[in-house]
Amino acid sequence: MSDLWQISEDTFDPQSQHHKETIFTIGNGYLATRGAFEEGYPDDRRGTFVHGVFDDVPIIFTELVNAPDWLPFIISLEDERFSLDTGTVEKFHRSLDLRTGVLTRIVHWKSPGGRRAEITFERFISLADQHTMLIRCQVVPKFDGEIEFRASLNGNTDTESIAHWHWIGQGTREETIYLHNRTRSTRIELASAMRFLVVAGKPLFDNFCNVENTPTRVIVMNAHPGEPIALEKYVSIVTSRDTPAVVNSAIEHVNNIADWHTALDLNTQGWAQEWARSDVVIEGDEESQTALRFNIFQLLIAAPRHDDRVSIGAKTLSGFGYRGHIFWDTEIFMLPMFTYTNPHIARNMLNYRYRNLTAARQNALLKGFEGARFPWESADTGEEVTPTWVPNQNDRTSLIRIWTGDIQIHISADIAYATYQYWKVTGDDDWFVEKGAEIILDTAKFWASRAEWNTEAGYYEYNNVIGPDEYHEHVDNNAFTNRMAQWNMQTALEVLDWLKSHAPARAIELINQLDLSAERLARWRHVIANIYLPAQQSGLIEQFDGYFNLKDIDLAAMEPRHKSIQSILGIEGANQTQVIKQPDVLILLYLLGEHYSAEDIKVNYDYYTPHTDHTYGSSLGPSIQSIMACRVGKPNDAYEHFIRAVRADLQDMRGNARDGIHAASAGGLWQAVVFGFAGLHITPEGWSANPSLPTHWKRLKFHFLHQGELQEVDIKRDE
Amino acid sequence: MSDLWQISEDTFDPQSQHHKETIFTIGNGYLATRGAFEEGYPDDRRGTFVHGVFDDVPIIFTELVNAPDWLPFIISLEDERFSLDTGTVEKFHRSLDLRTGVLTRIVHWKSPGGRRAEITFERFISLADQHTMLIRCQVVPKFDGEIEFRASLNGNTDTESIAHWHWIGQGTREETIYLHNRTRSTRIELASAMRFLVVAGKPLFDNFCNVENTPTRVIVMNAHPGEPIALEKYVSIVTSRDTPAVVNSAIEHVNNIADWHTALDLNTQGWAQEWARSDVVIEGDEESQTALRFNIFQLLIAAPRHDDRVSIGAKTLSGFGYRGHIFWDTEIFMLPMFTYTNPHIARNMLNYRYRNLTAARQNALLKGFEGARFPWESADTGEEVTPTWVPNQNDRTSLIRIWTGDIQIHISADIAYATYQYWKVTGDDDWFVEKGAEIILDTAKFWASRAEWNTEAGYYEYNNVIGPDEYHEHVDNNAFTNRMAQWNMQTALEVLDWLKSHAPARAIELINQLDLSAERLARWRHVIANIYLPAQQSGLIEQFDGYFNLKDIDLAAMEPRHKSIQSILGIEGANQTQVIKQPDVLILLYLLGEHYSAEDIKVNYDYYTPHTDHTYGSSLGPSIQSIMACRVGKPNDAYEHFIRAVRADLQDMRGNARDGIHAASAGGLWQAVVFGFAGLHITPEGWSANPSLPTHWKRLKFHFLHQGELQEVDIKRDE
Repeated sequence: MSDLWQISEDTFDPQSQHHKETIFTIGNGYLATRGAFEEGYPDDRRGTFVHGVFDDVPIIFTELVNAPDWLPFIISLEDERFSLDTGTVEKFHRSLDLRTGVLTRIVHWKSPGGRRAEITFERFISLADQHTMLIRCQVVPKFDGEIEFRASLNGNTDTESIAHWHWIGQGTREETIYLHNRTRSTRIELASAMRFLVVAGKPLFDNFCNVENTPTRVIVMNAHPGEPIALEKYVSIVTSRDTPAVVNSAIEHVNNIADWHTALDLNTQGWAQEWARSDVVIEGDEESQTALRFNIFQLLIAAPRHDDRVSIGAKTLSGFGYRGHIFWDTEIFMLPMFTYTNPHIARNMLNYRYRNLTAARQNALLKGFEGARFPWESADTGEEVTPTWVPNQNDRTSLIRIWTGDIQIHISADIAYATYQYWKVTGDDDWFVEKGAEIILDTAKFWASRAEWNTEAGYYEYNNVIGPDEYHEHVDNNAFTNRMAQWNMQTALEVLDWLKSHAPARAIELINQLDLSAERLARWRHVIANIYLPAQQSGLIEQFDGYFNLKDIDLAAMEPRHKSIQSILGIEGANQTQVIKQPDVLILLYLLGEHYSAEDIKVNYDYYTPHTDHTYGSSLGPSIQSIMACRVGKPNDAYEHFIRAVRADLQDMRGNARDGIHAASAGGLWQAVVFGFAGLHITPEGWSANPSLPTHWKRLKFHFLHQGELQEVDIKRDE
Repeated sequence: MSDLWQISEDTFDPQSQHHKETIFTIGNGYLATRGAFEEGYPDDRRGTFVHGVFDDVPIIFTELVNAPDWLPFIISLEDERFSLDTGTVEKFHRSLDLRTGVLTRIVHWKSPGGRRAEITFERFISLADQHTMLIRCQVVPKFDGEIEFRASLNGNTDTESIAHWHWIGQGTREETIYLHNRTRSTRIELASAMRFLVVAGKPLFDNFCNVENTPTRVIVMNAHPGEPIALEKYVSIVTSRDTPAVVNSAIEHVNNIADWHTALDLNTQGWAQEWARSDVVIEGDEESQTALRFNIFQLLIAAPRHDDRVSIGAKTLSGFGYRGHIFWDTEIFMLPMFTYTNPHIARNMLNYRYRNLTAARQNALLKGFEGARFPWESADTGEEVTPTWVPNQNDRTSLIRIWTGDIQIHISADIAYATYQYWKVTGDDDWFVEKGAEIILDTAKFWASRAEWNTEAGYYEYNNVIGPDEYHEHVDNNAFTNRMAQWNMQTALEVLDWLKSHAPARAIELINQLDLSAERLARWRHVIANIYLPAQQSGLIEQFDGYFNLKDIDLAAMEPRHKSIQSILGIEGANQTQVIKQPDVLILLYLLGEHYSAEDIKVNYDYYTPHTDHTYGSSLGPSIQSIMACRVGKPNDAYEHFIRAVRADLQDMRGNARDGIHAASAGGLWQAVVFGFAGLHITPEGWSANPSLPTHWKRLKFHFLHQGELQEVDIKRDE
């Protein structure tokens, strides 16, 4: 039986190198590093991303910066440099131990000149001291001679061809080497420090190469057949977001590493605590078991444990896609796992939004509205950083207008929803009084000001929006948006009442600060009571005004296909059909499930399911689709959607895993297991499970925190 | 009396470091390097540009790439790194010897720890072997101890924050170090090679630091007070545009350097030949004398001597401005100096356009026209590389449309004009038959197809254009454009007749190839005869339709000002006034002077001069304005405009010399002296001079080639 905690491979395929760099990303929630090789490989996309380290760029405004590279570890057998693109790879094995975050690579290599060596690299990014990373390299030579080892810190990195780092200085303090850089526009300082130690074998020669922006230590070792040589590289990274004295701090952190085994033990203890809360056990489905752990791992290594000024981007810290920007993916897809298992992390991520309320108010004002309007894409400042125009690949003289930053407004309700969910699940009243309530009240204020009164029809509308289904832009009365806006305002009134009775001083403070006058609240009630919420007698909800009049094309008849419907029909073409990128209405029925009957859910599920581009539409879709399939009693269908999400990154189902982990899909998977297959249901009275496991699953077990108490759910199929 | 061949300074002002980097640019027409310090300085804008080495970038499509840096030469007195931003600068002197292109810097420095040294750097880029560059450094220590010298090749350069270079490899061959890089999109390979030699003093220690992308040699020397130490760094650069075997070639070139003095002698001989043809002697005006040599020097170091696939960009090879793109500045402002003094260089630059005829035809086709339409901004392929949209600094969500690439079409006539001028001045019939004629014929074809027949008025028009005066966009019937188009077509007919009698086979070939049917030529004649060319009875030419109806604001009343009228009034605001960026109509009268009477010139000069933004409008304006002032008998006014151009870069009159040399201004200066003050006039019968020297000038002497024969003009004022 295989170890269901390992992601491994026994061949290296250069064609999938960028995909595998994403898969073998490791991290600790402070930073993460893609799985590129220590010694490099032609055209690799090396990347280390540190939370909050953004810098300016053209077109997309700001991006998470690829940090100075801490990996470089170059081995030369005599004068032949070890690299997988030369010589002969006689054995290759790479594995990521999800239990501890240790990435191991074993290569038996024969140089072009015939020298052989068995090389093992291990590395991890410590969960115990978030500023430290360690590499251990063992070489068993099969020849007599010399082996040169070169370890560097490299400040000459770029981010998708943009150079962000200025060099400030470098040097040595005792045996520790340091490098000091600064981002060009945001002027964030980053110091990295390094120690390079021989732990087996005897050095012949040792030299510090003080080359600007790439301080390097070179150690030459005697090689004898079968006699192992081992070196360790310890690195630390500290930024001016942590402390002003970055160089001293980096040196201190790296010097505090006692040795490999001690550091590894501390890291393993940290991971044991994480998994005690976060593991989900599936018996009877090894693929799903391993993949689920992989997806949870990927969220855990991106989760800000000690910083509440940052949140997780759509591609976590694992790739260049979306440039580190943060979307609704975070609150609706990723956050529930943290809310239920790691509430302190969920709180950090919600604090990130709370800190950006001022920017959200500015954003509302800029668009002519009141209250708080969160940006569709968010980065360090909370300003809207969705690109407005992007180059057109087919005609370089023209540009394509991106509208999501202007009109995909549902994100403000999504954040309010996640805030409320966190409160209800954790019972964290203190935080809610101090911060959470304000988010819900001020987004409600936005929604009331954004609603338009249709005199003729006699109701309120939200016109010219984009719903979760991005195949349709500039729609009116998107059901998801309208209903979530209504929910947001209703909930705000409820919250205000609760505050008045539980924290009256804070209630008064917020009423004054946000100008929650009786007139304003009356307006909210009027909007709530008169918002247009279309539904047919059958309970079928029209996704937006006129959706049912669009061309109804037969998606099944277009199979097999290898790209999205939008790619096939074009943006305008897809816009004119009923094909949807993700199950817009079903997400609403999922989020506000207690307000819809089983019949409502069934009729909408049956209508929208065949209209959804499940394979190449949004990667956010399959997990929700899976949950809703459980709700309508179709566990086999549920599993089909679930397995699509399971394979999204590991099998690179959409061909873009090279850009980073599909984090919403990862978070959605956890929800699919917990709220779909296990059917976990929380009410004010407590929680219940209503399982509908796939037929081959024998057991499903996980933990969650409810009102601060650890709960275990353990579902075993009777056989 | 000072040496009128030196540009020098005795203090270093960090505020003007980028300006001075431009001023102290040296080069040889293959590449040029900005005057940044060998050892670096915070925020320096180091730059080496090699002709033809372009790579892709967003927004502006392509840019001349900042090459791997060959300068790095770092000195440490014990452990104290020499840098002008630390310690005490007790003496500073920097001078550029225009006679030989040698840049010298003398610094007496006291380290923070109190160690003193007198440091002299000399460097030049060889005119004898275009692939080689040399640095010589002498240090006279004032202390006992050790001095470390580090010389690198650095492939980690960026171009305005864009990283263009992939690392391919590096290493040593004997004592020579090499580095091999490749541009990311255009895949141009570049090899640099380096030798680092001790020529005075005794090395204690010598080490090669094989750090990726920055191969470095470190030499540690014994220091004794008063005992000079000297080291020399020889570097070569070769690209795959020169040869496929770039590494071998680079090593060969650098190994061929015998020693500093031999290389310097060869370089000096090369420069002596250049100056024999190119020098202009002015007596009685030291500022103008030195500045004129400086401007000629700047053109000579950017001039492609051995490559006819490239031309000189608006900022030469001296800065990042306009990203190496080539405009009409080249043919109208820079080319005449070469045509008259270095015709082989002018021919190379015209061949660049000839090679891009195919792209120019494609460009015409794309816009729906026939013939050859040269791009407003041109780079390596001859495609249009004017950005269509650029970010708006005031509102990051919006963009500004740049129209010059669409409608500033006069460039095609400008190139035809320069082609014709080259032919007439040099008498290079062979080239003209083979190449030049085709340029003139195919641009004529474009003009005929671009002309629009106005049925109502009964004439041809060119509507929706931008003339040389870019303060007015989307104008109809710009006089410059209409008349130059007419000239182009007239000249094409003349050229075709000449070909028929002098090269009948080529005439037939071109008639077939370009489809110059009788019908087509009849159409040309019809356009020529009926093109709208507005002029009042007085001879005053309206710059474009409706210009005289625009608001006539009093420019003089707006003085003193420190920015352009366009900055003050805005793009739209300036568009609604008669203020012009440069003397649009006067440039026409300059280029086609033989077609206009003295009275025509006077009336237009008197009208347009007070409407021109001479100080902060186009840097192309003052030289032409100066020439036209001479034509109307106003040598004092001529001198006022002339001195503005003289100071453009040296005094940084427009505050943007940091971006590179104003090359059109530099070329215009030469024309102002030769065609303005000297009044040189060429006719089919020969040449004449009609001097109108500024009152304080005692003598003006220069050479030029006429029909291949060297001519001397020597004007002495009788006293």
